[in-house]
Amino acid sequence: MSDPILTPLYNQIIFMDMITIQSDRLKKIGTEIFKAQGMSDERAAFIAETLVEASLTGHDSHGVSYYVRYSERIKDGFIDPEGEPAIAKETPTTALIDGRWAPGQITAFRAIETAVEKAKAHSVSAVGAYNCNHIGRVGYYTDWAAQRGVVAMMFVNVGHPAATVHGGKGKVFGTNPLSVAVPTGESKPFLVDYATSVVAEGKVTVARSKGEKIPTHWTRDKDGKATDDPWAIKQGGWLLPFGSYKGYCLQLVSELLGAVLTGSRTGPDPQKTPPSTNGVFAIAINPEAFAGLDEFTRNADELFAHVKAVEPEPGARVLIPGEPEWETKEKRMEEGIPLPEEAWDGIVSLARELGLDPDRY
Amino acid sequence: MSDPILTPLYNQIIFMDMITIQSDRLKKIGTEIFKAQGMSDERAAFIAETLVEASLTGHDSHGVSYYVRYSERIKDGFIDPEGEPAIAKETPTTALIDGRWAPGQITAFRAIETAVEKAKAHSVSAVGAYNCNHIGRVGYYTDWAAQRGVVAMMFVNVGHPAATVHGGKGKVFGTNPLSVAVPTGESKPFLVDYATSVVAEGKVTVARSKGEKIPTHWTRDKDGKATDDPWAIKQGGWLLPFGSYKGYCLQLVSELLGAVLTGSRTGPDPQKTPPSTNGVFAIAINPEAFAGLDEFTRNADELFAHVKAVEPEPGARVLIPGEPEWETKEKRMEEGIPLPEEAWDGIVSLARELGLDPDRY
Repeated sequence: MSDPILTPLYNQIIFMDMITIQSDRLKKIGTEIFKAQGMSDERAAFIAETLVEASLTGHDSHGVSYYVRYSERIKDGFIDPEGEPAIAKETPTTALIDGRWAPGQITAFRAIETAVEKAKAHSVSAVGAYNCNHIGRVGYYTDWAAQRGVVAMMFVNVGHPAATVHGGKGKVFGTNPLSVAVPTGESKPFLVDYATSVVAEGKVTVARSKGEKIPTHWTRDKDGKATDDPWAIKQGGWLLPFGSYKGYCLQLVSELLGAVLTGSRTGPDPQKTPPSTNGVFAIAINPEAFAGLDEFTRNADELFAHVKAVEPEPGARVLIPGEPEWETKEKRMEEGIPLPEEAWDGIVSLARELGLDPDRY
Repeated sequence: MSDPILTPLYNQIIFMDMITIQSDRLKKIGTEIFKAQGMSDERAAFIAETLVEASLTGHDSHGVSYYVRYSERIKDGFIDPEGEPAIAKETPTTALIDGRWAPGQITAFRAIETAVEKAKAHSVSAVGAYNCNHIGRVGYYTDWAAQRGVVAMMFVNVGHPAATVHGGKGKVFGTNPLSVAVPTGESKPFLVDYATSVVAEGKVTVARSKGEKIPTHWTRDKDGKATDDPWAIKQGGWLLPFGSYKGYCLQLVSELLGAVLTGSRTGPDPQKTPPSTNGVFAIAINPEAFAGLDEFTRNADELFAHVKAVEPEPGARVLIPGEPEWETKEKRMEEGIPLPEEAWDGIVSLARELGLDPDRY
């Protein structure tokens, strides 16, 4: 496989038997699923929206398939559907949020909302969160902030070891993502949002489901050998950090800020439950304290136009980070969201178990 | 060449004819060189110290060879040896500094000093700088901040195009580095400090001077073809961003924060002088607003101990970011700093031109 060009396809799970569902329908059914498990209308709609948004933008690995997984975690008592995050520590420019095992989206949104508010009032802010369930697609929050006129960063630790460290063997840290979004003028929002492993685990899942080989710089097998077998990671293997030691450095930065600074569980923590926790650290910067929002967005647009005018390599496109997500969203808003049949079946069964009639939505 | 393990050797310029000079001697001679060009004792000593520190930590590409280049820029009127940066815009948590073309080190240090002060007082801060000359090794500043108990990040644009964008052709942006440092307890300071290109230009220079080939993922030739020829970049070729599209994203983040947000010259700016300007953006975070400094450094130490205990791949070592710099510094403090003979000759000639007797120092 050749080196992939910037694309959300990295996280798209494309199975052989796909069906297409309109995003509105997925949003409605998701809302009812979460309502049936004790969430308020507003909360249920919000969680469903963030997951549908991930699917719309092509981040299938963080999309509506989580309807089922979150529901299992609610049942197991890991996610408190009515949990309310609380501010444990606060200054005019910072907050540390105890997520109290509410749905991760509620905690992460509280964090970014607080960060934006404080950055608007005091030019810059930082907000951390612990006791936080899986927050979904990190770019949802930074993008939301950028659309409100601030520069936003988020560093997230994932309490589920999957990737090794540079030069090491074994699963050590989670895929520890980071995200940066900045406001733009005419251009589509600039959005960086990725795992610090070479690829998200979902990409390996895709190859497995399609019976394909994977590039040898993605994973190692249980003995630390380079492998093109997508099953190796399921059999004691591990993901590699992206970009040699440089990605490893960022993997550690997400761990230090997302977990150590917030007091969240770190990757190496032997405690296994609840599953897939996140430690969240957000920074927001108000451009008015620097070049000013108008000048910033005007010059950012100009910079992006310059980048788009760069002559591409044969067969490649030069893309602005965030552009693939917008392109995919436009397409899927119109054509619907492609889902593996078994994922859709899982959602339908879940709805029925909860006493809902999936055909009504 | 195999994939290099985390090492400062990335930036070490090792020529065939090397000589070794003690760091104290280099510091003294550097101080006299800058004093002779109109700098105060204190300022001259500081600039020399930052450059010697880069050489000591193995970042030769940002080390004492700059004695000569900075002196040329002073002569050409690009660096104002007596220039004083001024705060152009300020809030309790932020500052925007007009570097007024003072030596870049003076401006960058003013930025980080201000950021630390404001983070101590208000938990988090952000400081930008424009009209800023080459600041040297970025890690100098973030490390300084971390040693004062804050988490520090710096995003720097380099107004000297050398690297292309992902999927593109031609020199578009500078090597746009970033740096993150965090306070530690017993452990050596954690320090991330690297270019967002696969390698710094200095690494290609090394291969050239040694007559060696380079890995084909470092550069492209003038036609955009993969090449192992270290001369290609001198003949119309360009560097690639590190880690495929993920490094490209960070290249743009450094450009957006370092240049667009501060109002500095962006990479694509056609204006060619002054050479190698930097736009600087620093963020400082006080751990006391989160887990607390004591808990943070204790848990960071524990995390690093866990990482160091990871079984290494055959022939590899697992290193904490910053560790190679400390190892190199220890060695070079004792053994002296290896310099290409021609670099030392350049310093000696410069000293003589300025009426100094290099044998006195």
